[in-house]
Amino acid sequence: MFDKLFEKLDSHYPEMIELRRDFHSEPELAFEEVITPKKVATYLSNLGIEVREGVGGRGVVGTLRGEKPGKTVALRADFDALPIQEETGLSFSSKVAGKMHACGHDGHTATLLVLAKVLTKLKQEIEGTIVFIHQFAEEQAPGGAIAMIEDGCLDGVDMIYGTHLWSPLQYGDIGYSYGRMMAAADRFVIQVQGRGGHGAMPHETVDAVMVGSSIALMLQQLVSRNTNPMEPAVLTIASFHAGGAFNVISDTAKLEGTVRTFSESVQNQLILRMEETIKGVCAAHGADYEFNYIKGYPAVINNEEAVHQFVQSAKAIHPPERVLEIEPVMGGEDFSYYLQKIPGVFFFTGAGNKEQGIIYPHHHPKFDIDERSMLLAAKQLGAACLSYLVSKKESEVV
Amino acid sequence: MFDKLFEKLDSHYPEMIELRRDFHSEPELAFEEVITPKKVATYLSNLGIEVREGVGGRGVVGTLRGEKPGKTVALRADFDALPIQEETGLSFSSKVAGKMHACGHDGHTATLLVLAKVLTKLKQEIEGTIVFIHQFAEEQAPGGAIAMIEDGCLDGVDMIYGTHLWSPLQYGDIGYSYGRMMAAADRFVIQVQGRGGHGAMPHETVDAVMVGSSIALMLQQLVSRNTNPMEPAVLTIASFHAGGAFNVISDTAKLEGTVRTFSESVQNQLILRMEETIKGVCAAHGADYEFNYIKGYPAVINNEEAVHQFVQSAKAIHPPERVLEIEPVMGGEDFSYYLQKIPGVFFFTGAGNKEQGIIYPHHHPKFDIDERSMLLAAKQLGAACLSYLVSKKESEVV
Amino acid sequence: MFDKLFEKLDSHYPEMIELRRDFHSEPELAFEEVITPKKVATYLSNLGIEVREGVGGRGVVGTLRGEKPGKTVALRADFDALPIQEETGLSFSSKVAGKMHACGHDGHTATLLVLAKVLTKLKQEIEGTIVFIHQFAEEQAPGGAIAMIEDGCLDGVDMIYGTHLWSPLQYGDIGYSYGRMMAAADRFVIQVQGRGGHGAMPHETVDAVMVGSSIALMLQQLVSRNTNPMEPAVLTIASFHAGGAFNVISDTAKLEGTVRTFSESVQNQLILRMEETIKGVCAAHGADYEFNYIKGYPAVINNEEAVHQFVQSAKAIHPPERVLEIEPVMGGEDFSYYLQKIPGVFFFTGAGNKEQGIIYPHHHPKFDIDERSMLLAAKQLGAACLSYLVSKKESEVV
Amino acid sequence: MFDKLFEKLDSHYPEMIELRRDFHSEPELAFEEVITPKKVATYLSNLGIEVREGVGGRGVVGTLRGEKPGKTVALRADFDALPIQEETGLSFSSKVAGKMHACGHDGHTATLLVLAKVLTKLKQEIEGTIVFIHQFAEEQAPGGAIAMIEDGCLDGVDMIYGTHLWSPLQYGDIGYSYGRMMAAADRFVIQVQGRGGHGAMPHETVDAVMVGSSIALMLQQLVSRNTNPMEPAVLTIASFHAGGAFNVISDTAKLEGTVRTFSESVQNQLILRMEETIKGVCAAHGADYEFNYIKGYPAVINNEEAVHQFVQSAKAIHPPERVLEIEPVMGGEDFSYYLQKIPGVFFFTGAGNKEQGIIYPHHHPKFDIDERSMLLAAKQLGAACLSYLVSKKESEVV
Repeated sequence: MFDKLFEKLDSHYPEMIELRRDFHSEPELAFEEVITPKKVATYLSNLGIEVREGVGGRGVVGTLRGEKPGKTVALRADFDALPIQEETGLSFSSKVAGKMHACGHDGHTATLLVLAKVLTKLKQEIEGTIVFIHQFAEEQAPGGAIAMIEDGCLDGVDMIYGTHLWSPLQYGDIGYSYGRMMAAADRFVIQVQGRGGHGAMPHETVDAVMVGSSIALMLQQLVSRNTNPMEPAVLTIASFHAGGAFNVISDTAKLEGTVRTFSESVQNQLILRMEETIKGVCAAHGADYEFNYIKGYPAVINNEEAVHQFVQSAKAIHPPERVLEIEPVMGGEDFSYYLQKIPGVFFFTGAGNKEQGIIYPHHHPKFDIDERSMLLAAKQLGAACLSYLVSKKESEVV
Repeated sequence: MFDKLFEKLDSHYPEMIELRRDFHSEPELAFEEVITPKKVATYLSNLGIEVREGVGGRGVVGTLRGEKPGKTVALRADFDALPIQEETGLSFSSKVAGKMHACGHDGHTATLLVLAKVLTKLKQEIEGTIVFIHQFAEEQAPGGAIAMIEDGCLDGVDMIYGTHLWSPLQYGDIGYSYGRMMAAADRFVIQVQGRGGHGAMPHETVDAVMVGSSIALMLQQLVSRNTNPMEPAVLTIASFHAGGAFNVISDTAKLEGTVRTFSESVQNQLILRMEETIKGVCAAHGADYEFNYIKGYPAVINNEEAVHQFVQSAKAIHPPERVLEIEPVMGGEDFSYYLQKIPGVFFFTGAGNKEQGIIYPHHHPKFDIDERSMLLAAKQLGAACLSYLVSKKESEVV
Repeated sequence: MFDKLFEKLDSHYPEMIELRRDFHSEPELAFEEVITPKKVATYLSNLGIEVREGVGGRGVVGTLRGEKPGKTVALRADFDALPIQEETGLSFSSKVAGKMHACGHDGHTATLLVLAKVLTKLKQEIEGTIVFIHQFAEEQAPGGAIAMIEDGCLDGVDMIYGTHLWSPLQYGDIGYSYGRMMAAADRFVIQVQGRGGHGAMPHETVDAVMVGSSIALMLQQLVSRNTNPMEPAVLTIASFHAGGAFNVISDTAKLEGTVRTFSESVQNQLILRMEETIKGVCAAHGADYEFNYIKGYPAVINNEEAVHQFVQSAKAIHPPERVLEIEPVMGGEDFSYYLQKIPGVFFFTGAGNKEQGIIYPHHHPKFDIDERSMLLAAKQLGAACLSYLVSKKESEVV
Repeated sequence: MFDKLFEKLDSHYPEMIELRRDFHSEPELAFEEVITPKKVATYLSNLGIEVREGVGGRGVVGTLRGEKPGKTVALRADFDALPIQEETGLSFSSKVAGKMHACGHDGHTATLLVLAKVLTKLKQEIEGTIVFIHQFAEEQAPGGAIAMIEDGCLDGVDMIYGTHLWSPLQYGDIGYSYGRMMAAADRFVIQVQGRGGHGAMPHETVDAVMVGSSIALMLQQLVSRNTNPMEPAVLTIASFHAGGAFNVISDTAKLEGTVRTFSESVQNQLILRMEETIKGVCAAHGADYEFNYIKGYPAVINNEEAVHQFVQSAKAIHPPERVLEIEPVMGGEDFSYYLQKIPGVFFFTGAGNKEQGIIYPHHHPKFDIDERSMLLAAKQLGAACLSYLVSKKESEVV
């Protein structure tokens, strides 16, 4: 069946490109998507499969029932864009000032739509059900996944696959990881309230620059001393702002940053220790503080067994040396919520191409993808999906 | 002679007020003074005394030769204003947007002009010469004093007196100090150059927030450990700015602040130790830096013997309990340059008045003075000047 | 063949105990072993197998050639004791004051000797060669392994297994890890040279307590900021000693500690950054320093494929739920050198027993083992060894 | 009268030396003095003046009533020794093992006794009363002064003088200071209680080395930021001790040091801020602490007017260029208690002599004095005392 699948995908590659460029030129921000989901729903409806719109708000879910009985597998693509002014100079550049598909979600959506079309054509042979989850609002917490799950998009689903077109990997590479794939990415803001005064009279003040600097230093021990060395963790103070005139002691300091973890217990321990540390250092100086910790998406933790099967199918259809076990990425994704509910795999499909100058990181105004990555992604998703349905049927027979 | 002097000053108090309010309404910034020195020169010329304009650039020097031989004493007032938008609501508020006499120099000038008029009337009795130094540009380094001295304003002068109308002291108080009166007030800027990067990949960066925080902490030891505890010194980091987005490690940090000292050796030692400390901490992190240290005015160090005589004359004409030995003030003044050349006294004349709401600090948009302080200042300056001339004559006789 | 092996091991269990207790009562320190290797060599010679003494200095290597052709596999046990005064109160306690088998090497040796005896009896069926490596001096760097390897103990060997009787695991548990099993454990000493002086005159000194404290704080950033968060690393300052009298500023401070890593590049990067940090902080204070970094054994990194096979054989002969994938242990072992040369597996055999009060950690004066762990270790080593020889033969046939 | 006084002192100089050497050879520690006060009392009694023994415990007070009426002035000398093993090699070295007059109190006592003898001979001319305070236990808090005052030694006394033979000053110099003469010298001990553990498992510990280092750094801000820059203050951490084995995280750290101040409000503010800082830093780490702050003697603050008079009398009898205004000394003295009750002057009499190798600091096993300093001290004390009595009589007449 893979041969048929791949042949049809190859022949629909031009449509994939066309769709992607169309989405690219009309980006919509998270929680503001109107046109995009309408396009997606129309496309899926035209395939003759069941379509549910407004899932969890703005999501679209298509359901393809194979003509043979079997398990249910979901494939997910996200479709929101970013508040970035495009600088690629591409002919199909964003028509909307200040908005851009700078993360590849346009490609994700085109990939999944064409894959749905092709799979629909293989309907007779499919043993089980395939659910196409077109998710809104991945770029902005709380994200669309959680709402779509609450609205039932995973009901009856046994397995889920998703991919990210990934420019740090070269086209042709498939990247996966057993277990930890992407970190929980949180944000925090520390607002120090001291007491300002004349730069020559420090004893009448509580110097917020010193309080902030002391907090910055003391927080280092949370990773170096308070976290299990076997557990990856990052605590970054990305910005520090205090004071104005050179001779006035600042009454406030604002420190902002991010925490990255893979385990909830490490995450919670860090939050607790941050509060203790900030509180203690402020008390030591006689300063007050506000500490806001905003949890982002949880870590994306792949199911090990599912990864094992995915890797086998990937290596079967693709040069094995291009199927790479990679180090976890410290950035966040709300695919994590699906994986908290059911087994699944999130993998990267290489979309960079140094020769062609496709070298910009995600969220960069010049971000682009090697469009062939969409075809490869469609094949991997399709193969993983069909392999799963076949394997599961067999195992059930046994 | 004091009785006559005071009587005449009392009767010219209305003119003093009028002059001050005129200056107040037409402020001119340092190094931009045109109208003010012209008014001063015209006034002094009208008294019939020698006047030299354009001294050191924009200064005015009047010379009153007493009819009896004797020493030469100088009295100094500064006349520049500040780039501040006035908010006092006074009827004679600044007519110039964004400029204001927010430090009392209008009062200094009015005080000295009227004192010159009155002393001119006592010319017959005066044993020696009195030089009226109307200085430009006190508010902005390098200041006008140094240029006026180079242009000869102190030539042949034996002693100098100056006062500041001082709102932190109440009207009626005279504040002086043996030796250290006002600190050297310097400015510094530390620019840290690290290497930015993703907030989740600290190992690929040189984190400028951490370099800056470490510098801030390490610099504390320069005062606490490296400075003779008997020598006052302040090192304040007034501002700290680094970073933008919460998930991007900052490549730079800018720290700015001030150093206050009374002794040149302490000052130079601190500069040296700052450079060593910043260099060492940056090397420890693999960061680069730029360190700019901008020396302000030197410390105002009164001549002890001159203070002794001043205090005697002050207590003779004023309730002794209002003649106060005060702690040195950590702010700067370019009166220091005169005192580096010849003996002299710089003192404060209380200009605050809590009952009347005259409570705002110098350089505040609502700064004002109790105008009676001008009359008191004129009497103190006049008495100090005449006492000196008399005493020196006598001592010479002996 | 496993049934026969296990049956024979069971019947020789009393001899195993007897041997272990004999070794226990006569401990010899690393690089001082004389009696122990002689006993080992005699025992092996009596089995009729080839024995080489003095390997790498004090090691003993026995070689058992199976009667069928095949691969060569090595099994390793270490036999040195520790400079600890025993406090167990056991009947077979150490007869040598201040020396004790407090790490279980007595058990390792007894296990391997009896296993050699039993395997000799199965000689006819063995397809390949088994090398028994009795290593001296594991407890003290540079260790005996490196010298024995240089002296040829691994020549022609395809695979190696070793185990540690491990009291933190309960008897019945087998602990293994894919890849990272035990960390590189290094030691460092930082000697700060400041300039002492009177406690009331800090400005005439270079305060070594402050230099040391600053180093301690700055070093935290090496783990928290300068190490890839996916790479485990520990930098501990275990001791800090400076000063005597309460009113004398200390001229020196001595900081001592340990670094634990799994990757040589992380290790070398930390050494480099330590030197840079110490140098920079000392320069910032005007202090001098000596920095000694003493590398211990490298990390013990198991061969993944070999672990896979080991785990299969272990789960085949032992309750699978007692065969545990464990977190790497941060302590060091010179088994690492064997694994740098050839594939192999180092695993832990649980030797603790809470009910029997066998709860003391390794290197504790009351350390003991549940002796049944020797029997289990012998079975695991034997099974792994024979499984390997069989599997390899088969695969070659194919 | 001075001529007579000095002539008689000169002629009794040999007796002064003899007395000093006798005291030197028989040192007694603070609060253990028995023989010394007995010798003192006997000597004074033999002069025929009133003597009170056991004052405040072990003190001796002699009272000489001049034959003319007048004020009362006290002269003080302390007589305790130190627990130091003498290494001077002097012929009159200490006969008591481990005890030594290493601070010059032997000289103080000899000086005052001979001065008493000489003044007694001038009794007829003396207008007023002279009290000789021979104090015990100056070297050890709480000191003897406070108890002697409570026991009445200052009753009716109008003025007090005391001197210290001072080896950092050369023989021939007299050192004085208006106001601040010697600092309050306090001791503190900080005991940090963390939680120890394996050097490779920091996350299971509370690392006392890091807590201690953080405290050391944070405490710097108390001087650099929290103390009025016009107020001298020193906070020294003289010793830091934590940990043993290089791979065991220490559960405790002990920091010990000294605080020096001249003002009680600064002292109390520092104690408060120390407690806040230690508490805050420990809370930030999850550690406990004990903080013991042991106040030493208060600062020795001379009476300004009395110093003025003293300096006049000193310059009248001694080369004025050898009468030096010196910087305050940061070490402590319980002469402070007398000065808290009545006006007085504490001054230094130079006792060093580089040419003669008398260069060792106080409390050094090789400490010695140029004995001629005793004669100079006697003259200064005598002159100050008589000048005061004369001046006061005169002023009363007015």
